[in-house]
Parts: sequence; C-alpha cells; structure tokens
Amino acid sequence: MNIVLEQAEEIIKVAKAKSTELNTKMNIAVVDAGANLVAFARMDGAWLGSLDISIKKAKTARFFDMNTGVIGELSQPGGSLFNIEHSNNGLITFPGGVPVKDSEGTIIGAIGVSGSSVENDHAVAEAGASATL
Amino acid sequence: MNIVLEQAEEIIKVAKAKSTELNTKMNIAVVDAGANLVAFARMDGAWLGSLDISIKKAKTARFFDMNTGVIGELSQPGGSLFNIEHSNNGLITFPGGVPVKDSEGTIIGAIGVSGSSVENDHAVAEAGASATL
Amino acid sequence: MNIVLEQAEEIIKVAKAKSTELNTKMNIAVVDAGANLVAFARMDGAWLGSLDISIKKAKTARFFDMNTGVIGELSQPGGSLFNIEHSNNGLITFPGGVPVKDSEGTIIGAIGVSGSSVENDHAVAEAGASATL
Amino acid sequence: MNIVLEQAEEIIKVAKAKSTELNTKMNIAVVDAGANLVAFARMDGAWLGSLDISIKKAKTARFFDMNTGVIGELSQPGGSLFNIEHSNNGLITFPGGVPVKDSEGTIIGAIGVSGSSVENDHAVAEAGASATL
Repeated sequence: MNIVLEQAEEIIKVAKAKSTELNTKMNIAVVDAGANLVAFARMDGAWLGSLDISIKKAKTARFFDMNTGVIGELSQPGGSLFNIEHSNNGLITFPGGVPVKDSEGTIIGAIGVSGSSVENDHAVAEAGASATL
Repeated sequence: MNIVLEQAEEIIKVAKAKSTELNTKMNIAVVDAGANLVAFARMDGAWLGSLDISIKKAKTARFFDMNTGVIGELSQPGGSLFNIEHSNNGLITFPGGVPVKDSEGTIIGAIGVSGSSVENDHAVAEAGASATL
Repeated sequence: MNIVLEQAEEIIKVAKAKSTELNTKMNIAVVDAGANLVAFARMDGAWLGSLDISIKKAKTARFFDMNTGVIGELSQPGGSLFNIEHSNNGLITFPGGVPVKDSEGTIIGAIGVSGSSVENDHAVAEAGASATL
Repeated sequence: MNIVLEQAEEIIKVAKAKSTELNTKMNIAVVDAGANLVAFARMDGAWLGSLDISIKKAKTARFFDMNTGVIGELSQPGGSLFNIEHSNNGLITFPGGVPVKDSEGTIIGAIGVSGSSVENDHAVAEAGASATL
C-alpha cells in the first residue's frame, strides 16, 4: 500500500493546524512508501533552511521505518551508526520525521517537519501522521 | 513581493483541476521569488521522474523570469544558449514552467508542471499561474 | 524587503576595513533574503578554502535567521541539532555568519566571513552587518 | 602573476558601468589564475539563474584560457569537444566569459557575465577585462 495525495494533503492540513496551535512556522513534507515527495508546504515566514531539512527528515523516517530521533541516538560519536548522516545524499537524524501508517498499521509513507525546536517539530509531525490512522 | 502559501495552494488546486480536465496526472511545484519551494503535489499515479522535473521547471522559470520553453528554443545545438541546462544544478528548458505574477504584474514566484506531453504540462502550468492574477 | 547591491557593497567595504584593522585577510560573502549571493570579495592572500565557507556561512545565517555560531552550539554530539550540517548542500555552523537587517529590523540578507579565528570572523561579520542599520 | 582584489573590483566597476550603458542588469564574476572566485556582484533585478552562469563562465574562460564562446563552437553535436559542458561540475560555453590579462599580456584571471543576450554579456565582459590592460 502506498499513501495517496488526498491523505498527504490531509496530513499537511492537520500539521499546519498543530503548528499554528503551537505558534510556530513549519516546513512540512510528506513522502510515499518509495521515499519520494508527495506533498509539501512551507508556511509563511518559516525558516528557509528548514525546507531541505523537512524533506530529509521525511525520507530518513521512511528509509528506516522509524522516528528520525531514534536514529540520531545511534549516530552519535561512539554509537553504532556514527555519522550515518553521510549516506543517501544526507540524512537528518534529529526529531521531526515520523513514519505514516494506514489504519491497519502498515507504513505507507512518512512526514518530516522542520521550523522550530525539535520537540515542536516532532509534535507537529506526530499530529500530521495521526491523520491517516 | 513574494508569494504566500495560501496563493501557492490555490495555484496547485487550480492546476490539479486542469490536469484532471485533461485526463492527466501531474507533479506540480510552486517556488517563491527566491526560487525556493513553497508547495508541491504529486497526483496519484503521476510519473516519479517528473517530480524533480516539475521542481526544476519552476526554478528555471523564476531563474530567468520567462516560460521554460522560451529558453529551450535558445539552448538547442547552434543556439545562443546551447547547453545552459548544465547551470544551476540542472535546468529544465522545455515547456511546463511559467512565472507567477500578482494582480499588478509583479513576478512573485513560478509554477512547474510535469507528467504528460509538454503541451499539457504547459496548459496546466498556465492554468495554475492564472490563479493569482 | 530585500538587500540591494549598493548595500551589499557597503557591507563588504566596512567588513574589509574591519578585517584590515584586525590584521586579517578575509573572504566576505553577502546573500539576499532568498539566500542567493549578491556580492563577494576575497582579500589578497586570504585562505582559498575560506571562499566556500564564507558563502555557506552567509547562507546558513539567512537559512535560520540567526548567527551561525548559535546553530553550532546545538549541532554538537548529543545536541538537539546534531549533524544538521548535512542539510542544504552543507551548512557551516561555527561563528562568522550574521543576518543583515535594515533600519527597521527586518532581515534582508546575511553576511558570511571566513579567513581567521572564528572570533575575528564573527567580529568582521558583525561590523559588516552594522552597515545597513 | 595573479589578479589582486583591487583589480577585480575595478573590473566589476567598469563592467557595471558598461551594463548600465547597455540598459542591462548583469551578474558579474571575477576569478583568479586558479579559477577561484575573487569578486562578484549581482545588479538589482538581474536574473537569479545568471548568478551561477556568470561564475561558470568566468571559470570556463580561465580553465581553457579562451573566450567561452570559442569553446561553444567546438562543443556542438559532431564537434570535437561535444558536450564538454559535463566536465568540471558544469561548464558554460556560450559567450560572456573572457580571460583577464595584465599589461604584459599574461593571463591573471577571468571575468564571467550573464544577464542579457550573449552579445551584451560578451560586450560587458570585454569592457570589464579591459580594465587591467
């Protein structure tokens, strides 16, 4: 199964609402099961540098089917995945990337959010990902 | 002046409607005045390879403030801009990229569309660009 | 609002004077609000490798609208933004990049300086950025 | 011998004046004998996509110590240098790049200009290059 555009747009809508609720300005990217971009939105005034980061977070979350922050714990100096960020044209491994599942729990894509603290980025990504459950 | 997300989302909505009318499946990208992505949508079943092309078309249209097809006429063998496509990390110079203007005629961004014939790509881009006039 | 060339050239002039005062040789880059290069100068004898660093510092400062050194504090091992440098085709997150504001406080671009200690790089960037206030 | 910053800034000053005389808006890049950027200026309203092209033209002119347009004649389909543009991270081989010589005829760098027709680009590059003779 793969995410469809209607789902991706609903994810972005929910993520934007959560971002506004948190008083943040986010870049929001949704990729499909093939880790390719399906939908994207940059909220007015959001950091320009977060554009690429949001897409890389979404890809990273789907590349390994886990939250990006989990990978970041393993990629630290001395960790088992030290500097894994050098692969795949650049991973982002701090929080803000979350796999997207359908109602049966199958991973159908991922969302990446960037534009605030990693806590806020993750909260918005979680909110967005919940839209397809 | 710079495009805002609400305008970019309206552009994508209109472009999707035009694409459906033409019975095509498109990748649609909108960039701002700085040639940075603002919004993107890949319609279900659209060519995967058109994802990058749609973004490059939008960037190319803003890079030179003209329709991408105009550049392609000049970049042919023997033309004055032969192989200009090697610049800017890759340009796409066939039709489907169109500058986006506000109601006063100021360029505020660009749209890039890819997924069908260049005639259809251009028609959908034109439809999308008209949403902000 | 966006920086104009005359402002960018004044920034470089002031930055060069500060660099000479500190007895250093700098690469100085100024980008606009879209993070695209507007003006650049490499002082005679300045490190060649600092050319790219100065441009990346300017871009990084505009990408996140803050001094580059602030990001570097968060991108350390164990930090919340560990290895953020892998995004955006390479960030530089040690000091020397500073946002450029107009007289009303609006960010209109950024300056990046590289060629000496990070303390000197930052001092020259600050001097340059002050030219538009 | 190598170009110094003072010469590069004089080249840009003369090139800007020529550009204004021709009623054009140019991106102007000057590289040294090592093909590395020394000075750059983007005139207000100049095409954004010409930024990279102007730098690539300057590099190309110094890479081969000849006007870029000469290479472009040889890189056409069937030509002896067909698609040489794929080398060096992208060459630009249409007019607008010109070697810069000192008063004794030694090549000390190159200028690249982009922003108008190739005829205007070349005329501005020639004007700039003449500043060091």
